Amino acid sequence: MSQKFPYEWLNQPFAAIDESFAQRVQARQAQLTKPPGSLGRLEDIAIQLAALQHTDRPSIDSVHITVFAGDHGIAAENVSAFPQSVTVEMIKNFARGGAAINVLARSHHASLEVINLGTVDDTSSITAVKNYHLGRGTANFLHQPAMTSEQLESALQIGCDAIDRIQQNDQNPLFIGGEMGIANTTSATALACCALNLPAERLTGAGTGLDMQGIAHKTRVIAQALALHCNKVGSPLESLRRLGGFEIVALAGAYLRCAQIGIPVLIDGFISTVAALMAVSMIPETQRWFIYSHVSEEKGHRIILQHLNARPLLDLQMRLGEGSGAAVAIHLLRSACQLHNEMATFSEAAVSQKI
Amino acid sequence: MSQKFPYEWLNQPFAAIDESFAQRVQARQAQLTKPPGSLGRLEDIAIQLAALQHTDRPSIDSVHITVFAGDHGIAAENVSAFPQSVTVEMIKNFARGGAAINVLARSHHASLEVINLGTVDDTSSITAVKNYHLGRGTANFLHQPAMTSEQLESALQIGCDAIDRIQQNDQNPLFIGGEMGIANTTSATALACCALNLPAERLTGAGTGLDMQGIAHKTRVIAQALALHCNKVGSPLESLRRLGGFEIVALAGAYLRCAQIGIPVLIDGFISTVAALMAVSMIPETQRWFIYSHVSEEKGHRIILQHLNARPLLDLQMRLGEGSGAAVAIHLLRSACQLHNEMATFSEAAVSQKI
Repeated sequence: MSQKFPYEWLNQPFAAIDESFAQRVQARQAQLTKPPGSLGRLEDIAIQLAALQHTDRPSIDSVHITVFAGDHGIAAENVSAFPQSVTVEMIKNFARGGAAINVLARSHHASLEVINLGTVDDTSSITAVKNYHLGRGTANFLHQPAMTSEQLESALQIGCDAIDRIQQNDQNPLFIGGEMGIANTTSATALACCALNLPAERLTGAGTGLDMQGIAHKTRVIAQALALHCNKVGSPLESLRRLGGFEIVALAGAYLRCAQIGIPVLIDGFISTVAALMAVSMIPETQRWFIYSHVSEEKGHRIILQHLNARPLLDLQMRLGEGSGAAVAIHLLRSACQLHNEMATFSEAAVSQKI
Repeated sequence: MSQKFPYEWLNQPFAAIDESFAQRVQARQAQLTKPPGSLGRLEDIAIQLAALQHTDRPSIDSVHITVFAGDHGIAAENVSAFPQSVTVEMIKNFARGGAAINVLARSHHASLEVINLGTVDDTSSITAVKNYHLGRGTANFLHQPAMTSEQLESALQIGCDAIDRIQQNDQNPLFIGGEMGIANTTSATALACCALNLPAERLTGAGTGLDMQGIAHKTRVIAQALALHCNKVGSPLESLRRLGGFEIVALAGAYLRCAQIGIPVLIDGFISTVAALMAVSMIPETQRWFIYSHVSEEKGHRIILQHLNARPLLDLQMRLGEGSGAAVAIHLLRSACQLHNEMATFSEAAVSQKI
């Protein structure tokens, strides 16, 4: 295989997908005591997981959530409804177990790791957080690239390493990536506009709760940043370097690593979907490992999902991030597997089939 | 209160709803460490349950599923993709634990009761099923009313009694009603057409899997039945008597009883929604106790939900019945409550609020 990416690990092959198991699961679905196809999307999930897990009895036995956090230089442009200090305040909230993703992780018996890649304020004293120090947030991409090549490589590697820490002997794991970073919808929107060649006004939304005036200002900031960077972008990696956030790059790295070592990914909301878009832009086959959990209220999310041909499972008007939308969907995956594995067949139950 | 219904229990008052708890929960939602409103529909659920449960910490502590089953005389008109014997075969499958609703009940630690109100074949020997004998199915409503007044009253009472059996000392129960009865989408479609004054072709769908020709035939059968009965219907009860099924009437009775004794209801798919429509037609306030779990693939479901101003939580292209769509949504309600109850507030977590 030719060297395609400048970082060695990114050139490793993906885990094999075995469609024969998808076919076997599909055949069994038709034999279960229900009208054919009547479990809808739950049948699709079981079929997809079977091919990824190389089994005719797919299962989600452990869920690993990693929340990546980082600050954004672009926050200086007043593009968020919340002050930048909230990034670190929320990291502390994660560490104490008070955030939405903590509640959902407990409820679903999922592991939760919180990684600070680089924030304005320091969180080194918080032992419940894995701290890196890539910088005091990214640079303001209205004026310069958001990060250096070294920061980009490190952030990707941190995402990769987070996946490698998932116990290798874990049976049938599922990965959820979450994110925290004030102003990161601005970064994610710019990345998506650049990747999909869409104008800023098409994708820019309210983020954590901007009013119309705030959205108009954010749109102008993104349009200006696109004018500065977009024509200089020759690759998804360069796009991430110029417009990304540390946590978005780490998410993309984690997703790519999941596809390499064979862990299905449940994608969260807007930011996570943009990270998925970047991973798919780099290596299209990554997509096969993704299940899209929900469509959020953030304006651009539905459009980006359509570009990815992604069909989200939930539409609950959520827009929180942290991995919360994906965590809410965990039970759908578990139910899909349990239904497939535990239902009786027509012959086992002596039930007549369709006329 | 004046006697409105011919059966005494139906005239009992509904359980009180206390909106002050909804307001308190709404106020707390705004203080939790998340952008206001960012948990979307999950916030709405917590608010609704708070008013129903009279608490500012709503909770789903037990889930009770009752599957009502019965045969339909209209099945003689070849309106189903499955033979009529499947009703009893599936009752036996429920008793042995092999159906979708069994798997989901186990997964969600829900109780499951199966009630046979009246089928062509007898299931008296099956102790895991509660057997009534209202008749060997309903009469064929293409030619005569589906049931007698006595059968109607009994089926309503059976639904009521199923709710009364839910332990009275149970804290924060949730009720899910399911159904099984070959040809019951034909009955439900006729009921909905009559209640909403819609022509058969507007609501008639594939049921368990009719082809286009089968749907066209089913539409003609329903149109003919509507011509026979609809102008003679002066009340929802008379509509249920003429066009209903035993299990649909029992569902409506159960839903009404839930509103009387104060148990929130998670409504399942097409049949269950028609039963809810009939309950709401009788007593509009019943609606306040309902949470609509999903929109199914059955053609008329979305239209009926719109008439009810109902916003279903899930759209997973399911169309199985049995209560399965509602059971898949149980965890959304649990997550909604847990998020509300366990998240830290801005002041508890020392997180800055919106600018």
